[in-house]
Formats: sequence, C-alpha cells, structure tokens
Amino acid sequence: MTITCDTLIRVRYAETDAMGIVHHAVYPVWMELGRSDLLRQMGQGYAEWEAQGVMMAVSQIQLTYRAPARYDELVSVRSWVKEAGRRKVVFGYEISRDGVRLVEAESVHLVMGPDGRNRTLPDAMLALVTSAL
Amino acid sequence: MTITCDTLIRVRYAETDAMGIVHHAVYPVWMELGRSDLLRQMGQGYAEWEAQGVMMAVSQIQLTYRAPARYDELVSVRSWVKEAGRRKVVFGYEISRDGVRLVEAESVHLVMGPDGRNRTLPDAMLALVTSAL
Amino acid sequence: MTITCDTLIRVRYAETDAMGIVHHAVYPVWMELGRSDLLRQMGQGYAEWEAQGVMMAVSQIQLTYRAPARYDELVSVRSWVKEAGRRKVVFGYEISRDGVRLVEAESVHLVMGPDGRNRTLPDAMLALVTSAL
Amino acid sequence: MTITCDTLIRVRYAETDAMGIVHHAVYPVWMELGRSDLLRQMGQGYAEWEAQGVMMAVSQIQLTYRAPARYDELVSVRSWVKEAGRRKVVFGYEISRDGVRLVEAESVHLVMGPDGRNRTLPDAMLALVTSAL
Repeated sequence: MTITCDTLIRVRYAETDAMGIVHHAVYPVWMELGRSDLLRQMGQGYAEWEAQGVMMAVSQIQLTYRAPARYDELVSVRSWVKEAGRRKVVFGYEISRDGVRLVEAESVHLVMGPDGRNRTLPDAMLALVTSAL
Repeated sequence: MTITCDTLIRVRYAETDAMGIVHHAVYPVWMELGRSDLLRQMGQGYAEWEAQGVMMAVSQIQLTYRAPARYDELVSVRSWVKEAGRRKVVFGYEISRDGVRLVEAESVHLVMGPDGRNRTLPDAMLALVTSAL
Repeated sequence: MTITCDTLIRVRYAETDAMGIVHHAVYPVWMELGRSDLLRQMGQGYAEWEAQGVMMAVSQIQLTYRAPARYDELVSVRSWVKEAGRRKVVFGYEISRDGVRLVEAESVHLVMGPDGRNRTLPDAMLALVTSAL
Repeated sequence: MTITCDTLIRVRYAETDAMGIVHHAVYPVWMELGRSDLLRQMGQGYAEWEAQGVMMAVSQIQLTYRAPARYDELVSVRSWVKEAGRRKVVFGYEISRDGVRLVEAESVHLVMGPDGRNRTLPDAMLALVTSAL
C-alpha cells in the first residue's frame, strides 16, 4: 500500500503576493519540504542520501492550481512515491487546506552523483523507495 | 509571426542552493519576469492589466530542467504567447545561457477579476494577445 | 515577566545557498514567522490585526550572524516584545540550533492603517502588547 | 573618491506581499546583487573571489525602511565600500526609485576561507577594496 506523508505548513507573510494569496512559485518549495519529510518517515532523510553521494536532481515539475492559500493559514502537503526506478523517481503531491484541494502536482527526479552525472540508485535505496509504492 | 521577448537575468547568490546551482523553484519567478516583459513589449504591462481589473491567475505550470545555472551567470528567458483565448492564455518559455538550453516551460493562465472570479478578456486585450501568436 | 515564544523551523533546501548554508536573507522571514507565532500566543494573530485595520510596517531590522544553519536542521526562533508604544513596537529575536546561538536580531515596527499612513494602536492592542513586556 | 555602483532592478511580482508592496526580506537580496555588481565594476567579481578561496561571510546587516516599492517599478541600488580592513569589509547601500529614497542599509562582512574559518584578505584584494573607499 502506498505510503503517504502529511506535512503541515503555516503560510508565511513573505510567501504571499500583491494579489493577497500565496505566490505560485512557493508551492514547489513546499513540495520539496513534503518530499523531504516523506523520505525521513521512510527511514532515511535526504541529507543522508546526499552524504552517501546520491542526489535527486529535479528533472520535471508540473503543478495544477485549483484554489489559493492565504497568510497564516495551515496548509497540508500530502506526498507519496508514484514511480520508482533505478535512474528515475517520481513523487506525487496534493496540497490542501481544511479538506479543500489547492494544488495537485508531480515532480520527476533523476539520480545523480555529486559530480552532476547520472548514476543508479544503490540497491538498499531502491528497495526503500520501491517499498513505499 | 510569433512575437518573442528575451529577458536577461543575472543569477543572484540567494537563488542558488546547497548543490551550488540555481534552485528549481526560482525558474517560475524568472518565467513571470519574462512574461511581464513580453506584455510590456506588446504595449501594455501587466500592472495596467491589473489596473483595468484583469488578472491572469496561474492555473498550471510545467517545467523541464535540462542543465543547471550558477551564481553570477547571465541567463536569458525567451517568452511568447502559445495560445490565446477569451478565458485562457498560455505562455511558452525557453531559458538558456550562452545558447545552452537550461529549461523549457509553459504556464497556463485563467482570466479573472479582482474578486477572484472567472471573467473574459476585454476585446482590446484579446486582440493584443492574439496578435502576438 | 517578558513573554517569549519559541518557533521550530525545519530548514528547507530552497533556503540554502551555494555556500551550503542558509542564505542570510532567510532569517528576516523566520523572524516574521516567530513574531507571528508570538502574537497568536498572546491571544490575537496578526491576521486579526490586519482585519481590524492595524498594520505593523517594518521600519528597521538589524541582524547579527554568529553561526550558520544547514539543510534539514531544526532551528528555533525565540521572539519577544522589547519595546511597546502607541506608534512603535520593537521585537527581539534569538535564533539557535541545539542551544548554539546562530543569529540575534531586532525589528522595529510602525503602526499604520491600511492606507499606509501612521496611526496609533487601539487601547486594547496596546494593553496586549505592553502586557508581554 | 568613493566609487559607487548603481544597479537597476525591475520589481518582480513574487517579491511583493499581501500588503501590495515589496516584502522587507527582499532588500538584503537586492543589496547582495548591488554589492556583486560593485565588485565586478571594481575589476573582480565575487565568483572570482570564491574561486581564489576568499569568502565574504555576512556578519551583520542593518536596514532602515523609508518608503515602499511596488510591482513592476524600476528601483536603483547604490552600493559602495564604507570600511575596508584585512578581516572585515563594510558596504553601504541606498535604494531608491525616481529619486525617492526607499531604504538605507549597511552590511558587515568577515573574510573567510572555504573551510568557514576566518582568514585575511590577500594584499591585491585588500588594495582593490581600499582603493574604492
């Protein structure tokens, strides 16, 4: 069964814009926070991945905005692993507030070394990510 | 013939992350800057749109990352109108550095009033946007 | 006795820079988050202040950086009211990680109306802020 | 005679907040952009400093906000060297729009190596910075 992780975020004033709502470029930052929490909950935070020489370079993101969030609201980012491969991992996200869906999104990541070149996931990491599907 | 607009951006230190490259959430901000320049070049800046009660709410964004940018580099955002309708406008983007393509992207916008409800583009604005196709 | 409020913040990847540490412009954003929590804890969140037509425009900030923070660390922002007047309120901050002091700071705010003009704090708000000293 | 450098910045929508003005945490980012331009104009960009193992860690910032900036405005950041020492360099800033002063600021930097430890400026760099006073 798919493992999901819910991250609660209090909207910062700096995250709003002159329309009075959260600026759309803030959501990828929240997705990353959710993804980071998901990995930690699965047993190995992303800081440890990096320490082992495994980077997850963002290769694609896609977001659909359904409703706005506002200053001081508590929003929830639900994150999960959508696809897991040796070279590519895809995460899914649903961002909501009080049960109202604000944003649906997806991010595609390529496995890389600290030198910026493609590499493959070590077996233990692949098993970890696959087990979350 | 499609009107394009090139916006030059000097990469800020604050835009880089611990991988030593520009953080992926910065690109939507640059796309907005490019889109804003494109509208100004077409004859009516977005600030004037807002003053006339026409908002372009971001409804979708999609970015594909091909190569990273680094601190102090000069990157170029090319922007153009991809689709123009009374209720929806789509912009395309190509971000590059010295001819190397870094990011390809697209943003979908819904026409809204200051009350946050959908509305349609006034004729003059629709003509303006359509003429750029 | 001075009321203090501690806000825990998980460092976001987007908040780091190419030096591998949290960018210095992120701390004012964290201070605002701490100040916002402090007001909520004192009984009236800043969103309610705004709803009553009272803005706290930032007039001055001062930060001293002692040690850096890094991705994924848990930092704590301690906030308190340093000075309370009818026209001006000063907040103090200490940001730390595991007892290590990272940043000491202060922000000065002028009371303003939604029209951007100076005004004075209503009595009830002044009493609230003064009681926290 | 003090060398000054003027950097023009077009205000981004993402830089505004729900008060309809530029968020106060954006100004340190602009100051850094100005400082970076000043160093480049003086003959050696900060990227080259880093390449030579010399970091300028921010040790203190202080900003006084006098008037707000808004979306799409062109603001100008004037930067200059205020104090130059072997271990510490201080920069001054004045941010304005159409001759109206928005922000006055200062940043204090400590010279560091890539290992994060204090070091002293090489003679050539010290001469460069001192000549700008």
